[in-house]
Amino acid sequence: MWRRDVRRFRSEPLPSGAVERLIDIACLSPSVGLSQPWRFVIVEAQARRRAVIENFKICNAKALQSYSGERAGHYAMLKLAGLEEAPGHLAVFAEKSSETGHGLGRMTMPETTEYSVVAAICSMWLAARAEGIGLGWVSILEPTGVSEILAVPRSWKFIGYLCLGYPDAEFDRPELERANWEHRRGGEQFTTRR
Amino acid sequence: MWRRDVRRFRSEPLPSGAVERLIDIACLSPSVGLSQPWRFVIVEAQARRRAVIENFKICNAKALQSYSGERAGHYAMLKLAGLEEAPGHLAVFAEKSSETGHGLGRMTMPETTEYSVVAAICSMWLAARAEGIGLGWVSILEPTGVSEILAVPRSWKFIGYLCLGYPDAEFDRPELERANWEHRRGGEQFTTRR
Repeated sequence: MWRRDVRRFRSEPLPSGAVERLIDIACLSPSVGLSQPWRFVIVEAQARRRAVIENFKICNAKALQSYSGERAGHYAMLKLAGLEEAPGHLAVFAEKSSETGHGLGRMTMPETTEYSVVAAICSMWLAARAEGIGLGWVSILEPTGVSEILAVPRSWKFIGYLCLGYPDAEFDRPELERANWEHRRGGEQFTTRR
Repeated sequence: MWRRDVRRFRSEPLPSGAVERLIDIACLSPSVGLSQPWRFVIVEAQARRRAVIENFKICNAKALQSYSGERAGHYAMLKLAGLEEAPGHLAVFAEKSSETGHGLGRMTMPETTEYSVVAAICSMWLAARAEGIGLGWVSILEPTGVSEILAVPRSWKFIGYLCLGYPDAEFDRPELERANWEHRRGGEQFTTRR
């Protein structure tokens, strides 16, 4: 059973219609008040892809500067995105001003709009894996910059940038665990009773 | 195939250990930088459960006041939570100040901490369904109030309150669609190309 977040892709393109089918499955996700706030941008233009990659490189260089000593050396060794190789680039946004769902469930927790989009990405993640497609979620990006590169409406909030493609290799442990960056803990360590 | 968000529960308790098992599965979710920021509070004390239900009732009454005319009448008819009947109450938080994962991936988008917790809830949602257990995510709550009722650390951000139990009935369409509150749209309506 390989892990979900994939950063090493084969360059082989995805079958025609694969991304659209994954988006259709994502749209079956639950959303707060049936607001369906997800907005998907299939990024095809090479110039836009390059600009996103530049955005990542700048953010990643800044992130590296925040570490020191051994941890910095370790960070520099990590592969944190598959943007260069992945045949599919998909940006995902949340429409904050949508009237769909008539605001139900969002009054005290407006952030449930963003959470609904995250749920849709998680559905897509599993659906992709069921077809042998890898998905990598890139968060080392400056959101305003990505929104500008992709020229999306101002009411769209950037949630995540997804790399899609066939995995170069399948691993059963998370990349950051294999790299000894961090280890996983069991549920009882995160559970309290009241 | 029944839908995921369940609001109508049988009072029959869940098997011993079921909630803990679902939490274990949730903790297998991907998280930003392996930060594992999820914090689960199994709410057992009747006084705390009652206080959460009161919080919901106040928020729901305020939400009703935000609608007028036919829409208000419609809102008042909706069943929006299963807090009274559900045998299991589980509150889920995000630990914003955790050092786990050494901050990786969170610098430009600190909200990915919350998103990781949402991903864990989505894993739990599907795992529950695979066992015939229904899960309902309640967002009509005032987050500060819930945190106070459950006496959690200040660095924990409230993400969602989950009702767990066996569903009273299984539906293949979302509750809000069956109630004609909102309808679902297909993926192509949410997709653009750049």
